[in-house]
Amino acid sequence: MTARLIDALVTTDALAEVFGDRSIVQTMLDVEVALARAQAHLGIIPATAAEVIAKAAKADDIDVAALIDGARRSGTSVIALVEALTARVEALDGKAAGFVHWGATSQDVADTTLVLLVRRAATVLGRDHDSLSEALADVSDRHASDVMIGRTLLQPAAPITFGLKVAGWLAALTRSYARLHAAVADASIIQFGGATGTLGSLGDRGLEASEAFAQQLGLGTDAPWHGHGDRLASVVAACGIYAGELGKMASDVALLMQAEVAEAAEPGGGSSAMPHKRNPSSCARALAAASRLPGLVSTAVGGLIREHERAVGAWQVEWPTVADSLQATGAALESMRHLAAGLSVDPVRMRANLAAAGGSIFAERVMLAAAPALGRDRARALAAEVASRARASGEPIGKIIGRTPELTAVLSAHDLESIDRPEAFLGQAEAWRSRMVAAARAAIARSR
Amino acid sequence: MTARLIDALVTTDALAEVFGDRSIVQTMLDVEVALARAQAHLGIIPATAAEVIAKAAKADDIDVAALIDGARRSGTSVIALVEALTARVEALDGKAAGFVHWGATSQDVADTTLVLLVRRAATVLGRDHDSLSEALADVSDRHASDVMIGRTLLQPAAPITFGLKVAGWLAALTRSYARLHAAVADASIIQFGGATGTLGSLGDRGLEASEAFAQQLGLGTDAPWHGHGDRLASVVAACGIYAGELGKMASDVALLMQAEVAEAAEPGGGSSAMPHKRNPSSCARALAAASRLPGLVSTAVGGLIREHERAVGAWQVEWPTVADSLQATGAALESMRHLAAGLSVDPVRMRANLAAAGGSIFAERVMLAAAPALGRDRARALAAEVASRARASGEPIGKIIGRTPELTAVLSAHDLESIDRPEAFLGQAEAWRSRMVAAARAAIARSR
Amino acid sequence: MTARLIDALVTTDALAEVFGDRSIVQTMLDVEVALARAQAHLGIIPATAAEVIAKAAKADDIDVAALIDGARRSGTSVIALVEALTARVEALDGKAAGFVHWGATSQDVADTTLVLLVRRAATVLGRDHDSLSEALADVSDRHASDVMIGRTLLQPAAPITFGLKVAGWLAALTRSYARLHAAVADASIIQFGGATGTLGSLGDRGLEASEAFAQQLGLGTDAPWHGHGDRLASVVAACGIYAGELGKMASDVALLMQAEVAEAAEPGGGSSAMPHKRNPSSCARALAAASRLPGLVSTAVGGLIREHERAVGAWQVEWPTVADSLQATGAALESMRHLAAGLSVDPVRMRANLAAAGGSIFAERVMLAAAPALGRDRARALAAEVASRARASGEPIGKIIGRTPELTAVLSAHDLESIDRPEAFLGQAEAWRSRMVAAARAAIARSR
Amino acid sequence: MTARLIDALVTTDALAEVFGDRSIVQTMLDVEVALARAQAHLGIIPATAAEVIAKAAKADDIDVAALIDGARRSGTSVIALVEALTARVEALDGKAAGFVHWGATSQDVADTTLVLLVRRAATVLGRDHDSLSEALADVSDRHASDVMIGRTLLQPAAPITFGLKVAGWLAALTRSYARLHAAVADASIIQFGGATGTLGSLGDRGLEASEAFAQQLGLGTDAPWHGHGDRLASVVAACGIYAGELGKMASDVALLMQAEVAEAAEPGGGSSAMPHKRNPSSCARALAAASRLPGLVSTAVGGLIREHERAVGAWQVEWPTVADSLQATGAALESMRHLAAGLSVDPVRMRANLAAAGGSIFAERVMLAAAPALGRDRARALAAEVASRARASGEPIGKIIGRTPELTAVLSAHDLESIDRPEAFLGQAEAWRSRMVAAARAAIARSR
Repeated sequence: MTARLIDALVTTDALAEVFGDRSIVQTMLDVEVALARAQAHLGIIPATAAEVIAKAAKADDIDVAALIDGARRSGTSVIALVEALTARVEALDGKAAGFVHWGATSQDVADTTLVLLVRRAATVLGRDHDSLSEALADVSDRHASDVMIGRTLLQPAAPITFGLKVAGWLAALTRSYARLHAAVADASIIQFGGATGTLGSLGDRGLEASEAFAQQLGLGTDAPWHGHGDRLASVVAACGIYAGELGKMASDVALLMQAEVAEAAEPGGGSSAMPHKRNPSSCARALAAASRLPGLVSTAVGGLIREHERAVGAWQVEWPTVADSLQATGAALESMRHLAAGLSVDPVRMRANLAAAGGSIFAERVMLAAAPALGRDRARALAAEVASRARASGEPIGKIIGRTPELTAVLSAHDLESIDRPEAFLGQAEAWRSRMVAAARAAIARSR
Repeated sequence: MTARLIDALVTTDALAEVFGDRSIVQTMLDVEVALARAQAHLGIIPATAAEVIAKAAKADDIDVAALIDGARRSGTSVIALVEALTARVEALDGKAAGFVHWGATSQDVADTTLVLLVRRAATVLGRDHDSLSEALADVSDRHASDVMIGRTLLQPAAPITFGLKVAGWLAALTRSYARLHAAVADASIIQFGGATGTLGSLGDRGLEASEAFAQQLGLGTDAPWHGHGDRLASVVAACGIYAGELGKMASDVALLMQAEVAEAAEPGGGSSAMPHKRNPSSCARALAAASRLPGLVSTAVGGLIREHERAVGAWQVEWPTVADSLQATGAALESMRHLAAGLSVDPVRMRANLAAAGGSIFAERVMLAAAPALGRDRARALAAEVASRARASGEPIGKIIGRTPELTAVLSAHDLESIDRPEAFLGQAEAWRSRMVAAARAAIARSR
Repeated sequence: MTARLIDALVTTDALAEVFGDRSIVQTMLDVEVALARAQAHLGIIPATAAEVIAKAAKADDIDVAALIDGARRSGTSVIALVEALTARVEALDGKAAGFVHWGATSQDVADTTLVLLVRRAATVLGRDHDSLSEALADVSDRHASDVMIGRTLLQPAAPITFGLKVAGWLAALTRSYARLHAAVADASIIQFGGATGTLGSLGDRGLEASEAFAQQLGLGTDAPWHGHGDRLASVVAACGIYAGELGKMASDVALLMQAEVAEAAEPGGGSSAMPHKRNPSSCARALAAASRLPGLVSTAVGGLIREHERAVGAWQVEWPTVADSLQATGAALESMRHLAAGLSVDPVRMRANLAAAGGSIFAERVMLAAAPALGRDRARALAAEVASRARASGEPIGKIIGRTPELTAVLSAHDLESIDRPEAFLGQAEAWRSRMVAAARAAIARSR
Repeated sequence: MTARLIDALVTTDALAEVFGDRSIVQTMLDVEVALARAQAHLGIIPATAAEVIAKAAKADDIDVAALIDGARRSGTSVIALVEALTARVEALDGKAAGFVHWGATSQDVADTTLVLLVRRAATVLGRDHDSLSEALADVSDRHASDVMIGRTLLQPAAPITFGLKVAGWLAALTRSYARLHAAVADASIIQFGGATGTLGSLGDRGLEASEAFAQQLGLGTDAPWHGHGDRLASVVAACGIYAGELGKMASDVALLMQAEVAEAAEPGGGSSAMPHKRNPSSCARALAAASRLPGLVSTAVGGLIREHERAVGAWQVEWPTVADSLQATGAALESMRHLAAGLSVDPVRMRANLAAAGGSIFAERVMLAAAPALGRDRARALAAEVASRARASGEPIGKIIGRTPELTAVLSAHDLESIDRPEAFLGQAEAWRSRMVAAARAAIARSR
């Protein structure tokens, strides 16, 4: 009755485990135990009760089907969980049973559980992100001076280096991961408010119980946030942006891997119909996973409008939205980590494609070199003309310029000599590349 | 490693089974068998090969984990499935093995499988929809003359009947289900195109093979549609709109169920913190499930932009998008079917709330009755004045009007007598209500 | 204070006019006039009142700024419009003023106006769609036998014809437009329900007034639908799917237009920095416009959950959502119509790219031809081997096969002779192409 | 040809001005001037050229229609703007004309312009946010001890204070605005990369030109980010979350304003059909505006997947997405600021509703007080029983408890005395409320 085949491309084994039934049940139980221990520590409930609760809180003893039934009956599986836990505690110690779930409401347990799962999932993402970043930093360094066509609107524009392109991916991923990391840290707080967020049932001991509970779980505290989903929505949004940048990288590689371009390739998968076909399978998985995110983010943002102290429905949809977002992000990340580790790059083909693009790629440079003397309009027209001739004839644009008196009259010797050498037109490519790589390496170092 | 607890509110048991691993594997095998039989029938492959393939195609023999691995390696689980099936066939008959998956490509099997799953899911939805419709038609009939406040912008407006309100839900659901049904019918065609949609590998026998294959599965035929997701996106969009109308009904019931309104109620669930609390749990589930749809529809629509003959990623995300959409729609539907079957309605409270709303609810009628004689502006001002006095004093607005000479001078005796009887201000409520119910009943009858 | 520059790419002049302030105001006035005339015709209001209202209902006399203020104050611009119209009528005939907007509520006018604007916008789209379809049908015919690489996951797969590719776009657009057309027809009904959908203010004359009103405007009738947005959401969803297929076509052309592929091109725009650069500007506009739709569709679907007889907010956001959807769809359509009319296609380059893809493109065919004799596994391995050798050596795969005894032993003479001729591997390409084109032409003919 | 009526509810005058045509044109010109001045300062272009460019750069001289045409032809209005500016410069000084737009590409100007507009829009939002926050802090203080029903799933739960509810809105808005502010600060950097992000045309002077350019505009610098939309997508996402919390507040107020609840009210608007009706018009506007955001955020996130150094389409859709997001957020904010300034609160009605909710609201407290002695199950059953009897009889639950020996035996005198006094069950309400208000006030103070 499960659907692992449907989710195959949009999750990973590690993240499916984090958001799996067993993990959820155990985490909910851990939350109940932390609650009991915190309150036992403060003398709010008897210490023996907390001990018995801790002893009884074993996921293996819980019937998941009953929790699902309970969720459908009452909108949350926590009620059924508390009943099951209470029954187990009762069997061990009748007096302790009354102290299960003391002072809390279902949503306290559900929200705090979700926060703990998010934190665990983020740890998995963090490892993969560091590994991807290191691989990309290395790839960028390795290809720091491999020139290639820069492409805008899928057309050849001015030359860049492959190292710069990779550094661009890396910088965007570094920034986006930092946002995700910050959003997870910001969301790593307990929810503990009782029925309506006042902890009324704990009288004047709510604040200390709250702090002790948070301490048990290693989470932060704040006023109860039951009616306000902004922190978790920020996590989902940050996943969306990070996954989007992974998708951008995947899209670039798939485009570079086209047979007609052939500048880079991933090991790739096969085809049932076509022997010998080399597919950008990692890119496909990353793009499939990343394309779940815009919709999930819209669900998270749309779910912020919640009625009063707890909504009818909005709260419940947070679970699949948050879980799907982290899993799809993790799947895209796993794919790109795999790809980055095995990416093959063909600098010779890059240079060949540059040459084949003909002079058009240097037209901007011709225009700019000639504009001061000839005016922008005339320079632009001349640049277009020599580029067009280069394209038509297949001859290097430098030669054609050398035969164009209006240009030779105004270009410097250095310009004339270097006009169609891409290396001479790279501007700040290396400066920016090395900065971005250094910043990413510093971020990885900080994360350790 | 599964996540049934996360999906509890956004699927149903029946639909989780349709989109479960076992169902998917068996359906993929069924597609392979249909393919073999169709081609055996036409003499394209040996008849014995088809027999052996049919014999070998048992889901229980397939290792789902291997398919998942395959999906991650090559972007589709079909390649691994074909390998597994081929190995099984080989074990039975070495010669037959070469004819497994003849002329097809992975996407042919994946797409046709998805279509078959959608059709099965739609059958489940159809049953629940009919049952919900019947319940709503009965509720509407039962409360055809129970007057209540009509509410706009959550404020009392003119009176309606509860029967009309329910008929409005029913009509919107009838229309929306008809669209979903049509979209599923339209999408119920095979995909069979080979590597790029030409069936090149079948030479001149592609068309007949295509028709025979479709016949085996009871599906329609058309040119291969691999690069074009419009039909499945239409199914998802139709789910979105149908689920949206289920959500509207759920939202209305949850609002009517507020303690301060108390005009209707579902049996509802409990609360772990609050004994005696009666929650709109079915509404919560329906709203949670329905709120997944806007995001899913946006993913489906966004996924239409696909590169060339098969996309890098867009195709793969269709599976979770379509499966989640039908399941969430089914969950919302199951909840509303449950609710409609057990909805309790309180006509006495409805009438009490009408009375409490005071004269403001009749202000429109006063204005319209007086406008021909006094002009709209003066009539409007007088209507507002008497409504305001009625509100302040708690006295029936009719009495206040009877003491307002400017109004008694221009209102007819009939108007004066009936001015604050809601029944006298229901206009076409019953005409429209009975029409909508009759149309819905006719639609149910047609569906049988 | 307007933002035409921001919307430049996501609307057209014609559609910006339809959804422009003047058009909206005049249409709202037309609705008020139709309402008055219908009721005058039935003797519900005096005939002279309707005449005066018609005379007064001139958009030029209405202060748009006051309507905007009114909309912000009361959530709808209709109240201010009715006030302005009433003042104008009053100036002409004091008695008539009381009959302005008789029996209607603001939402009746707003909804009916929106329906009329949608219908006008759809007419604009219909013209462009027919013109695009004709152009594509012609392009498909013209290139019915121009073979090219079929590409899956952006990699060369088996050969197709450009005619088939274009017919695929055309068929998806024909289907999607038919859905949009049907959705608009379905939504082309009046909204007329008074305060809460009962037309209570018209006593027992609501039904006939409703029909007469609809007749005045050439719209259909049904029970009031104020609380149910399913019909307009279906229009938005149909726009989303249609625009998605326009985006798919744009994406394909942009990919074909890559300098390294160069199989097709649009006239295209320029670049401020790069003389001579030829950009896929029409594709860019179509993709930009189409990429608005997933979000807009999600807003439309999300807006279906509406409180009671009229929602707090959901209703109001329908206006920008519907207007933006039709405009963005129209912009994508205008771009693709322009592109289709001027698309340049390079069959020579297509064939050259096919040749350059080497034997890998024929590997499926080799495998299938050899599988019956050698078994699928061995045939697959051999096919991969010869394809790989062809790729490495640059030699035609046919020659390599001719030197491979294991293959020459089992392939027929005809197979051997044609094994690397793409024309021999096109299967049903032409059958399906001509069917799709014929179906599209039939649809255009029907639309006239 | 504009659509102010459609946008009335989803923008404000101030923000429509920021994103209006005149503002855009002038800002693009300001960017060109900053570019020229920066390079003149460094001697890259002649100082006189910069002076002439500055003199010529007047929005009033630019024909917006020509820019729109240009945008449709070439995908960006910047090319036409540069042409128009160049013509103006040429008229003043032929030599200067060649230095217009020196070293930049269209996207540099478009992106930097958008960043400047975002910053200006954010300033407008910031002012309104501070003003809303102050008003809410005051409202919260004023109603710090006004008890009311806490509502979960739209049902009465335990008591809270109105001050706490308002502080919850305020805290979520404070957090969400801080994220938006940070996202805008993070995005406030120039884009300056030339054709492909290397500034190749500036040789080795790109870095200093870049810094000088940024300084002219008061923006930060970083490597060119043309292909990476993460920063602007973060702004849109932050708008979505902030607007979602505004929508949550609006939804709460609209629910409290229901006639049957009547605990709070906004001044509100009217109705064309219903005199005297008091509508939550500000809430409606806020909800309409906020409901645009989920779709816009999904567009922003979906638009991150961009081809190579500049995408085909994704880039262009950023403009309407960013502009619509900030405007809709601003409209929701303006509405809530207006509402907060004039919100009327009815503490008497709050207390009456509490009383009417009967004992059920104290059932949790009864259960918790009795559980240590009686066990949770028995305590829960008893609590439900007394609550049920209180509901049925209308008698205060305290009296009923006083007559229930099983409870009087175990409850303390203090418990018995205070069991149905809401003030005795407020727990940490005031502690958390005052903390949240203090934190918000500190945030406002920091923003000055």
